[in-house]
Amino acid sequence: MEDGVEEQTAKEYVGNEQRFSVRTDLALEARELVGDERSEISGVRYSVRREGDYEVTISVVEVLNEEGEKAMGKPKGRYVTLECPELKENILEAHQEVMEILTRELRRMIPLKDDTKTLVIGLGNRQVTADALGPLAVSGLLVTRHLYAVAPHELKDRIRPVSAIAPGVMGQTGVETGELVAGLTDKVKPDVVIAIDALASRRTSRVNTTIQIADTGINPGAGVGNFRQELSSKTLGVPVIAIGVPTVVDAATIVSDTIEYLQDTMKAQGGIQMHIFQNFSEQEKYQLIQEVLKPNIGDLYVTPKDMDAVAQRLGNVIAGALNMVLHHLEPEELKEYLY
Amino acid sequence: MEDGVEEQTAKEYVGNEQRFSVRTDLALEARELVGDERSEISGVRYSVRREGDYEVTISVVEVLNEEGEKAMGKPKGRYVTLECPELKENILEAHQEVMEILTRELRRMIPLKDDTKTLVIGLGNRQVTADALGPLAVSGLLVTRHLYAVAPHELKDRIRPVSAIAPGVMGQTGVETGELVAGLTDKVKPDVVIAIDALASRRTSRVNTTIQIADTGINPGAGVGNFRQELSSKTLGVPVIAIGVPTVVDAATIVSDTIEYLQDTMKAQGGIQMHIFQNFSEQEKYQLIQEVLKPNIGDLYVTPKDMDAVAQRLGNVIAGALNMVLHHLEPEELKEYLY
Amino acid sequence: MEDGVEEQTAKEYVGNEQRFSVRTDLALEARELVGDERSEISGVRYSVRREGDYEVTISVVEVLNEEGEKAMGKPKGRYVTLECPELKENILEAHQEVMEILTRELRRMIPLKDDTKTLVIGLGNRQVTADALGPLAVSGLLVTRHLYAVAPHELKDRIRPVSAIAPGVMGQTGVETGELVAGLTDKVKPDVVIAIDALASRRTSRVNTTIQIADTGINPGAGVGNFRQELSSKTLGVPVIAIGVPTVVDAATIVSDTIEYLQDTMKAQGGIQMHIFQNFSEQEKYQLIQEVLKPNIGDLYVTPKDMDAVAQRLGNVIAGALNMVLHHLEPEELKEYLY
Amino acid sequence: MEDGVEEQTAKEYVGNEQRFSVRTDLALEARELVGDERSEISGVRYSVRREGDYEVTISVVEVLNEEGEKAMGKPKGRYVTLECPELKENILEAHQEVMEILTRELRRMIPLKDDTKTLVIGLGNRQVTADALGPLAVSGLLVTRHLYAVAPHELKDRIRPVSAIAPGVMGQTGVETGELVAGLTDKVKPDVVIAIDALASRRTSRVNTTIQIADTGINPGAGVGNFRQELSSKTLGVPVIAIGVPTVVDAATIVSDTIEYLQDTMKAQGGIQMHIFQNFSEQEKYQLIQEVLKPNIGDLYVTPKDMDAVAQRLGNVIAGALNMVLHHLEPEELKEYLY
Repeated sequence: MEDGVEEQTAKEYVGNEQRFSVRTDLALEARELVGDERSEISGVRYSVRREGDYEVTISVVEVLNEEGEKAMGKPKGRYVTLECPELKENILEAHQEVMEILTRELRRMIPLKDDTKTLVIGLGNRQVTADALGPLAVSGLLVTRHLYAVAPHELKDRIRPVSAIAPGVMGQTGVETGELVAGLTDKVKPDVVIAIDALASRRTSRVNTTIQIADTGINPGAGVGNFRQELSSKTLGVPVIAIGVPTVVDAATIVSDTIEYLQDTMKAQGGIQMHIFQNFSEQEKYQLIQEVLKPNIGDLYVTPKDMDAVAQRLGNVIAGALNMVLHHLEPEELKEYLY
Repeated sequence: MEDGVEEQTAKEYVGNEQRFSVRTDLALEARELVGDERSEISGVRYSVRREGDYEVTISVVEVLNEEGEKAMGKPKGRYVTLECPELKENILEAHQEVMEILTRELRRMIPLKDDTKTLVIGLGNRQVTADALGPLAVSGLLVTRHLYAVAPHELKDRIRPVSAIAPGVMGQTGVETGELVAGLTDKVKPDVVIAIDALASRRTSRVNTTIQIADTGINPGAGVGNFRQELSSKTLGVPVIAIGVPTVVDAATIVSDTIEYLQDTMKAQGGIQMHIFQNFSEQEKYQLIQEVLKPNIGDLYVTPKDMDAVAQRLGNVIAGALNMVLHHLEPEELKEYLY
Repeated sequence: MEDGVEEQTAKEYVGNEQRFSVRTDLALEARELVGDERSEISGVRYSVRREGDYEVTISVVEVLNEEGEKAMGKPKGRYVTLECPELKENILEAHQEVMEILTRELRRMIPLKDDTKTLVIGLGNRQVTADALGPLAVSGLLVTRHLYAVAPHELKDRIRPVSAIAPGVMGQTGVETGELVAGLTDKVKPDVVIAIDALASRRTSRVNTTIQIADTGINPGAGVGNFRQELSSKTLGVPVIAIGVPTVVDAATIVSDTIEYLQDTMKAQGGIQMHIFQNFSEQEKYQLIQEVLKPNIGDLYVTPKDMDAVAQRLGNVIAGALNMVLHHLEPEELKEYLY
Repeated sequence: MEDGVEEQTAKEYVGNEQRFSVRTDLALEARELVGDERSEISGVRYSVRREGDYEVTISVVEVLNEEGEKAMGKPKGRYVTLECPELKENILEAHQEVMEILTRELRRMIPLKDDTKTLVIGLGNRQVTADALGPLAVSGLLVTRHLYAVAPHELKDRIRPVSAIAPGVMGQTGVETGELVAGLTDKVKPDVVIAIDALASRRTSRVNTTIQIADTGINPGAGVGNFRQELSSKTLGVPVIAIGVPTVVDAATIVSDTIEYLQDTMKAQGGIQMHIFQNFSEQEKYQLIQEVLKPNIGDLYVTPKDMDAVAQRLGNVIAGALNMVLHHLEPEELKEYLY
């Protein structure tokens, strides 16, 4: 049978890639690549629910042990993902709803006492549209560290000392962001570090619609910029919370998704049968395309045309949630301190 | 025969698209879609040659009459394209060589007398990495209109009155760029308008490696931003020269290119036969993918990761060539006036 | 008597400056220079009152006829000035109060029907801290012209077609802002133009604490940037409303103010008598200093150290008021449309 | 005698300011305040010469010991000042000349071996026109640290490892720049730190015409921004070279200068005698004005109207000199690596 032949050859083409690498910044997607929603993965706990008027999907992936780490290609820890298609639209109520859920989930994840010192790092390059999320979020934060010492008692009870930097704007400086953050952590001595970054997804439908928070810190990823360093309790000596939104997909993802659509559409139209990827797992398919694309096309990324407006709004959602988590101020009061 | 069935159905799927639309900003690519390099197209003249150390490819497409316009989907006029893969790299000599050829080709195309007044328009949005080419080029121009009246004779003989704006930075203003340029042309009364814009290509290999100049002005295109208006002698009343560089490709192009690579690679590996697009013309294939992609993925674009640095350099090349064309100053003198 | 001699000589030094020129962008200050608060000036009507928790001072100067124009050096029209020292501080309630009064006063001044088309011009250079007010205000406006045609009925009843540009960011373009605005007005055909600009004051106490609105348009002034053109019903053919905030004072003002302080302080300390400016009017004194300063020190301006933060907040106050005036939307709705 | 009375009272007004503080960032001006050019100051060595077509004035002030430190209010070390009025104009030859002298003087001052690691800090806020010098200079540097390890031998012989940051762009972060620089120095471990900053002068004629370099590092000064921390070998553990250009003067300076001009002018005109500051030293006069100004007018600064263009050019001069000092590359080669 012809199909059989094809399948075999293509698989051979993919080759004996022993070290299987899941290429996504989202734990949720890493899990999807390993098995479908109902299948049990040893060392990984998974739950999902929907909430609110905009039916925000909240998925929790917990990588419990080394076995789970191996299966997922992600370090041990808790990954919470909020998904809401309206997040990429200009719909204030949806943003409000996501912001509230995000606030609650961050409160659960960040270990906070009354005087906890936080250092927020906005990773990424403000000048590159798809990479500006971190700096944009940081610019909306209520930064208080420099005021904390001189604040009156009644205010001190309601704010925590927060500092925040967006080091990536320093661009081609010959200084690694990781070094800078490590050096700064040594001096500022925060109790917890929060790092915000733009991520890469493997599904175009997740671009600008998904927020992932994780208690594992930032690990070398497939993101927009060139950030390939680890920011974690291991490298910084304090807990590191990561907040990320996928703003790009890579070229291979687009190709893979489209071929799938083509297949489905044509099947529905009757007659046509796509033979290319039959009997391939999603992961094998992706790898094949990736290998073909890389030498010919190079480092490209795919991003929405209205990315600049969307990034601004996503930055506001994250800054808003962090302001609520890190301080005890009413939204109106926050506004007064912010502008 | 199975293949026959497939082919038929897929063609039916593409449907009876009567108004055939070639989707590319480059005349060179429009020509490639109509027929291969050796085929004669009625109403279109085409020539190609290579030049210089970096073997810059210079293609000239002339659309001669209505027949040519219909075949190409591009207005009557002369389109000159310079291609040089090193243009996207940081190789000063290659930029220098392209700049010199560009200078010569622009001199041929722009009708210039000693006192010709030029208005240069840098289209695009400086805040969006892939759309910043126009504003970046404009910021490197030697603008002289405001000095011309008061310049001493010996300088006046060597400069022409040039004004230049980058109107796109005005963003969401409710004012169409076309209106603004038309209003400005009414007041400034230039003899020639030069419009610089970022384009879309259908080949990833052309992104950031290709400069197209045309005496047709800017026509509603497939570019990065939302610029869909015509800037031409018809709308502005004076000759309009367009200068463009493709900085993005659209998602459909990437998919199409990759499937082609996949096909070729697998064929070379033996065994596998890709049945999807067999017997389809390139154009039919593109259209099919486009139709499938659009509703599912929306307005995305694909751009290189180092687009911000490359755009700066490409802007310098174009500004450099225009400064040489529009004034009679040595490079060292230019520098003095520019900074 | 020594004093007499001094006085005479100094007055002679000022010389026979026949064409008396009042050097301030504020009508209120022009009036102060002509005579004190209680004195009647022929052709000029003046009133002042205080309002609200923050005791906002609202002055109305009306230049009624040619006689008034001559006395004031300002064209015929109505000038309303709001003064509130807290405007330069980060006090949300004060901004809110000023914004509400500004909304009311603008409603009185701008001739608005349900479908009035407005074009808002943000003059000034965003890159220069003290000159960024216009662009900053424009970036906070709800721009609707491009949506108006396609808006549903229920929304159309509540918004007016507004377009807005910040042309000054185009920098050294060889194109006069006046030409650009005139060209644009020809094309957009607004019913009213609103121009926002940073002004110069003669009193340091008015910097960032004062908003002037006028139905006379913009007249060549002493402002921050190089804007020296007229934007008025005479040049644009439609009513032009000007909104301005003094963000700088010139060097002569600072010198004059300080010498006055010195005089007063020393007098209070007893003993010392300052003989320099005795028997000089404020205007003569200013002119004298101006003439001395100019050739030696050149074009300088004086601006507060925290100008960048203050400009952002002032831009928000003006944008907020204009959004309330030009549309019938609740603040919460506005927010939704804006971000 | 009346004058006597005045003098006495005014002096009393100045009061018993015991801790005499010279308020200028320039050692040259500190020296001028202590005594005139010909007078010997114990513990301070001073020399001055002119050089080149543009007659650049090169002053060297050496503070030799504690006695000198006390007299000058500046730490022990070597301060070299280049003055050239054409530096503030757009005159390429003048900039070239100053750049060459600056290159030579920096070579004398910076302790360099073949593999010396340099960390350059661009202090100041890029968003504030008068404070952008540091970030602008840094953006013109050839940064090589990230390339050094992988560079081929023939290149390695000609470049040194340089890293560079402009931390001030991080704005209101709650993180002191001093902490950030200290943390970074700990990680990057440079052999020498070079800090570039905008300064305040006491003479308007020195604004944008003067470059000071010093081997003492940065000391809490009277500069534009809020930088009040020490960056020196004491705080960072390695030699710190400071490069600064005065871009502002403070209000008190302008007042003082003008009154002086007034006095001189009037005296020349005959008749008038200014009694205010008679028998006061320049320093007493400045202090008096300062005390009067402060509570009434607050934190203001005075800066030229064309500061943004000038800052860009000054940044280029400094970056150009540093590139020549830190690497062994020809100007043309530098260009290739820079863009």
